[in-house]
Amino acid sequence: MKKIVFSVALSCYCLFGLTQQNSQDKKQRPNIILFLVDDMGWMDTSVPFGDSIYPLNKQFHTPGMERLAKEGMKFTNAYATPVCTPTRVSLLTGMNAAHHGITNWTSPIKNTNTDNDDEQFLPANWNYQGLSPVAGIANTAYATPLPQLLKENGYFTIHVGKAHWGPAGTPGASPYNMGFMVNISGNSIGHPQSYLGEENYGNIPGKTSANAVPDLQEYYGTDTFLTEALTLEAKKAMSGPIKNRQPFYLNMAHYAVHLPLYADKRFFQKYIDAGLDSTEAKYASLVEGMDKSLGDIMDFLKQNNVDKNTIIIFMSDNGGLALAPPRGGKPNTQNLPLKAGKGSMYEGGIHEPMIVKWNALVKPASVCSSPVIIEDFFPTILEMAGIKNYKTIQQVDGKSFVPLLKNPLSETKERIFTWHFPNKWIPGDGPGINYRSAIRKGDWKLIYNMRNGSKELYNLKNDLRELNDLASQYPAKVKELSFLLTQQLRKWQSPMPLLKSTGKPVSMPDEL
Amino acid sequence: MKKIVFSVALSCYCLFGLTQQNSQDKKQRPNIILFLVDDMGWMDTSVPFGDSIYPLNKQFHTPGMERLAKEGMKFTNAYATPVCTPTRVSLLTGMNAAHHGITNWTSPIKNTNTDNDDEQFLPANWNYQGLSPVAGIANTAYATPLPQLLKENGYFTIHVGKAHWGPAGTPGASPYNMGFMVNISGNSIGHPQSYLGEENYGNIPGKTSANAVPDLQEYYGTDTFLTEALTLEAKKAMSGPIKNRQPFYLNMAHYAVHLPLYADKRFFQKYIDAGLDSTEAKYASLVEGMDKSLGDIMDFLKQNNVDKNTIIIFMSDNGGLALAPPRGGKPNTQNLPLKAGKGSMYEGGIHEPMIVKWNALVKPASVCSSPVIIEDFFPTILEMAGIKNYKTIQQVDGKSFVPLLKNPLSETKERIFTWHFPNKWIPGDGPGINYRSAIRKGDWKLIYNMRNGSKELYNLKNDLRELNDLASQYPAKVKELSFLLTQQLRKWQSPMPLLKSTGKPVSMPDEL
Repeated sequence: MKKIVFSVALSCYCLFGLTQQNSQDKKQRPNIILFLVDDMGWMDTSVPFGDSIYPLNKQFHTPGMERLAKEGMKFTNAYATPVCTPTRVSLLTGMNAAHHGITNWTSPIKNTNTDNDDEQFLPANWNYQGLSPVAGIANTAYATPLPQLLKENGYFTIHVGKAHWGPAGTPGASPYNMGFMVNISGNSIGHPQSYLGEENYGNIPGKTSANAVPDLQEYYGTDTFLTEALTLEAKKAMSGPIKNRQPFYLNMAHYAVHLPLYADKRFFQKYIDAGLDSTEAKYASLVEGMDKSLGDIMDFLKQNNVDKNTIIIFMSDNGGLALAPPRGGKPNTQNLPLKAGKGSMYEGGIHEPMIVKWNALVKPASVCSSPVIIEDFFPTILEMAGIKNYKTIQQVDGKSFVPLLKNPLSETKERIFTWHFPNKWIPGDGPGINYRSAIRKGDWKLIYNMRNGSKELYNLKNDLRELNDLASQYPAKVKELSFLLTQQLRKWQSPMPLLKSTGKPVSMPDEL
Repeated sequence: MKKIVFSVALSCYCLFGLTQQNSQDKKQRPNIILFLVDDMGWMDTSVPFGDSIYPLNKQFHTPGMERLAKEGMKFTNAYATPVCTPTRVSLLTGMNAAHHGITNWTSPIKNTNTDNDDEQFLPANWNYQGLSPVAGIANTAYATPLPQLLKENGYFTIHVGKAHWGPAGTPGASPYNMGFMVNISGNSIGHPQSYLGEENYGNIPGKTSANAVPDLQEYYGTDTFLTEALTLEAKKAMSGPIKNRQPFYLNMAHYAVHLPLYADKRFFQKYIDAGLDSTEAKYASLVEGMDKSLGDIMDFLKQNNVDKNTIIIFMSDNGGLALAPPRGGKPNTQNLPLKAGKGSMYEGGIHEPMIVKWNALVKPASVCSSPVIIEDFFPTILEMAGIKNYKTIQQVDGKSFVPLLKNPLSETKERIFTWHFPNKWIPGDGPGINYRSAIRKGDWKLIYNMRNGSKELYNLKNDLRELNDLASQYPAKVKELSFLLTQQLRKWQSPMPLLKSTGKPVSMPDEL
């Protein structure tokens, strides 16, 4: 990997950051909150992100998100990766998943490739040991993490909730190694053993799994739901820098709304009363609990007189889970009108609800339809923090969307987005799930299926639901996108699964 | 409890703290490290704190402490309480244990009185739910914690290691509720389930007890000893405020050298080779591992050019454990020449190794023999931090020892110290153990045994070993000290055990 070294003048930022006043004047560096939800689908909200209000928008109640959308900008074409760790690493590094090579979720246990066994393929040589800020560890992506740069530039960096950047026994297990100064409840795990204070979030002597949620001991044996406990702790953590007049970065990364589906009692009955089946009522209660956290944090900022100078970025890490069971309802209907869900290359797996509030720049209740992708968050957040010259070990792939915040129509070029999932997420394949790559350029999206070499082509502007495969109709577009996708994968030396029959990597999209 | 409100002018400190430069000039507010060891005895070191070099001083190797003593001031008459939680709470509140009422160690599980059953007594109504910064919780001491004041005055407050201020399910379980901005591995537990990274410090699915050490996941499955892992994390935590030019307070509270006795492999063999039995070799290796942490932190400060402006206060929380087994050797010989050990009112239970390094004030290799006690740390640390006017919920009992740092002979008055242990720590009574109160005035010390009403009197100047009970020789002194002790206990409404036979509290010392 090439080292990129800019001339750096970081020290001035430190001084600037620490001598500033907390009055809400314009010169002050903003606080930044990334509010990252786990496994939340594009439609799991009463805020409509589609071209109209869909039935799911009526099913979910998210007044906090409604409030945020009213004060900020809604992004209707925001993307992540199909599963969680790749998204979380892209966010921390600015790299596309095909580039950092952490293409699947990482195990809480080290030296464990989470890929399922497959009859046709041997596993790709992906970076299943996760992100590492330390060089020389096999199967890790070595990179400079975003919070490290924020910390070095005077930000007070806080992580709360799910981390999931690498397994226990590696540096990636600890948010402190990523440049966070505070860590509450983040480590190697990807989901909580339990959401319940009554169950000590899983920390019950003799019954603890690898997924017990760390910290939060003061809530043991109480009825404090995990989402609420994390919110209370986040507020506590922000109070330090607010008192000390230091700008902060909060990575508010909820475990909600990931499995296991526990009823958040504060909201569960309401959804039962509305006629949802008990599983979906649990899910909807997890969503509304998460949404309450957002509202509570907005209230807290206001009470502390820092709301105007605090940016909030709302995002989910992949599509809503559409396997049923464990979800209720028919499989692959949980993100309608989007196709499929988490793990899939269809829009249901990667299309995300995203909102940005920034009083200084963003027009209230505005909308941006320009596509953005998770690796864009890295340069964006640094630009928001006023950090202009920085050095990173990695080549950053993302592009700041700050210009879009100023003017949602400012993007005139057709950007190219890449997705890459050379892994086996679930034992059986599903719609768009396992061994897929995809590329979007303008309105066109090509999906490559490594399993059989087939390609699908969709025009998302006319067909966001991906119902009409146009591959046979537009062979030139298929060829162009296959070429671009291959070029990208070759450039990044992206991991590819190996054919058991030959021991060789699967063909590139343009070889077929 | 009376509320004491001073007129406060805190905000100016915040600004001052954050605009200061990190150059080592004299006007800069110092960083403060409290290096608190668990269960370390007065003689568990190669630094002699007694009137001569004793055999134990030759048995232990503590080059870090030697270095600290060479650069700072050794306190030869420093006191804590007989067990850990009372000391830790006195430190955080400035209150004597007889005043805050947390007289025994607190359970990791809430609503659990840790007192052993007794034939003669019902338990005293002590505050077994620990310290609480929140009012209205039964059996807690409600007080303003030291780190809260430091945080409010611009300090970056870090806790690393053992906390043990209150049980899970109460606010006292979380260092964040005490005003710490960073917490690594502190919660309700009083000792680690395991010191070994190979054993995930106790966090093994299905085998986890209530004493598994939180956090530290990156070291799981490695050979990183707990003491070392905490040291590495402390350095990481300090790097933030050092970079941001913010003064920090580090509560470096090692789990070492508390049970369970694990060999710290880095040092174990050396003590076996020196002829120690395996249990004592384990203990000595725990001590030297802790000492290495001190040295490493001193090196780190130097490398970061903040050593001259960083105060280090070395202290232990109670006397060395002298129950054997689990310690090796004969019972009650582990702190010789001091009598008995942890849990006891004799000097072996409360007399502590203490060193303070502060370049701006303290003469290198100096010695102070004026008695100081754990509640003195609260006003001292605030004075060190330049915080002069502050309000606390509690009445502070301690007295700053900053004048002694300037001039070890400056104390001219005979201070009165009180100890109170109306509890049953171990099932059988031991020397000075269970149901004792004590008072020291000048060189005289009186110990009151609630069990039978007996009193012992020692002159510590001539008889630090407490071999000659002078009670029958000096009845007037016994009367005077009994009166003073009673006066103190009454003023503080200190908890007393109840006689099973009458249901009434045990007699006060001056009633007998």
